[in-house]
Order: sequence, then C-alpha cells, then structure tokens
Amino acid sequence: MSAEKVSLPDKFAKFSEHWRPKVVAQLNGQEVKLVKVEGTFPWHHHDHEDEMFMVWKGRFRVEFRDRVVDMGPGEFVVVPRGVEHRTAADAEAEVLIFEPAAVRNTGNVIDDTYTAPIGATI
Amino acid sequence: MSAEKVSLPDKFAKFSEHWRPKVVAQLNGQEVKLVKVEGTFPWHHHDHEDEMFMVWKGRFRVEFRDRVVDMGPGEFVVVPRGVEHRTAADAEAEVLIFEPAAVRNTGNVIDDTYTAPIGATI
Repeated sequence: MSAEKVSLPDKFAKFSEHWRPKVVAQLNGQEVKLVKVEGTFPWHHHDHEDEMFMVWKGRFRVEFRDRVVDMGPGEFVVVPRGVEHRTAADAEAEVLIFEPAAVRNTGNVIDDTYTAPIGATI
Repeated sequence: MSAEKVSLPDKFAKFSEHWRPKVVAQLNGQEVKLVKVEGTFPWHHHDHEDEMFMVWKGRFRVEFRDRVVDMGPGEFVVVPRGVEHRTAADAEAEVLIFEPAAVRNTGNVIDDTYTAPIGATI
C-alpha cells in the first residue's frame, strides 16, 4: 500500500457514468469510493454493512421509508446496516462513499441497470 | 445508530482547539473524526491501523521520513500501518480522519501536549 496523494476533483474528472462507484482508496478492510449520481436508485439494504455517503458537489438525498435526508457539499449521513434506503439526485451530484470492501451497491437487490461491478478502481 | 445528517462546517464551528480529534460518526468499527491542526505533530506510527487524512480547509501535510505529501481541500492520503509519519500545517487547517475506532492519535508515542483523549465526540 502506498501513501500517494489523491485529489477528489481529479478523480471525479476521470469518469462520467452514473451509479458506478469507483474505489479510490482501501484501508482497514474498508473502501473509499466515488460515485456520480443522477436520478433515483432502487430501494435496497445491506445486511452486514453500514454505509456513509458524503456529498462533494451538488445536492443528493438518502431516502428512507419514513423520511428523507437531503444534503449538500460537506454533509454526510451514515446508513446503518439492515435499514432500507435509496439514493437520489435531481441533478448530477458527486458523492464519496465509505464502506467495507466489496459491498454490492444494490445490497440485497440485483438490478440490470443499477447493480455495478464490484471493485472498479479509478 | 441513527441516520442523521452531519455537516462538516457546523461540526468544525463547534470547537477551536488544535490536535484534539472529535468523533462525528462511527460505522463498521471505524470512526470519522474531525481535527483542527496548526504547527507540527510528533513523529509516530500505528502498529495495526491505516489512517486516512482528508483536507477540508486550509493546507496540511503528512510528512514521512523520506518525503512530504502536501495537500489542500479535497485531497487525501492513506498512511499505511507501521509507517512513521507526522502531520503539520503552517496555518490552521481542518482535516477529516477515517480510521478504526479508539486509535490513539500519537500512536506508539505518549506526549504530554499532543496525546489526546480517545473517543471525544462533538
């Protein structure tokens, strides 16, 4: 493992597709991923992983069955394991994710459109 | 564990002391901490924990024995376990740390000035 500087703006500039998380760092069995989002993701949960979503650019929401957490740059939320949620953005947003390594983005769901390859880096 | 929105600017506004990390989230046995820094921290390492430092505001460096990683907002570095390092900032900087829960900030070193209480939240 090296200790090289990583720039969020530089990494976000390297890809354009939505809902395809890119691993930019690994530590302590966890991964830091970047994702661009626009639209609404499928409802799902993760049985064994908590997930943190931090907004870098734009507006982004995490929707639960009973409420919505709407966030802008520098705001984050932790979704506890087992809790059903979906993510959404009306316009493109850039989001940083902290979670254990090798999590499937759609959790308990397999979706032809939204389920992304695991372990893609950038 | 709740899923409340956390604002980095709001949390940083709540404290002013330097070199005293504040836990703002816990997930998967890891912690997200905020710290304000100015000056130079003691050399140290962590035997069993990788540490991620991401700059929110200002300029901040992680110094290794053979090189320096100098960072601004939106840049981060992961310091692998076992690697000696120290952190520094010429002017006050605001930094986010992602690492396993209950890490001592000075690692293998106990320092009267810099060793901080473990588990302080804000």
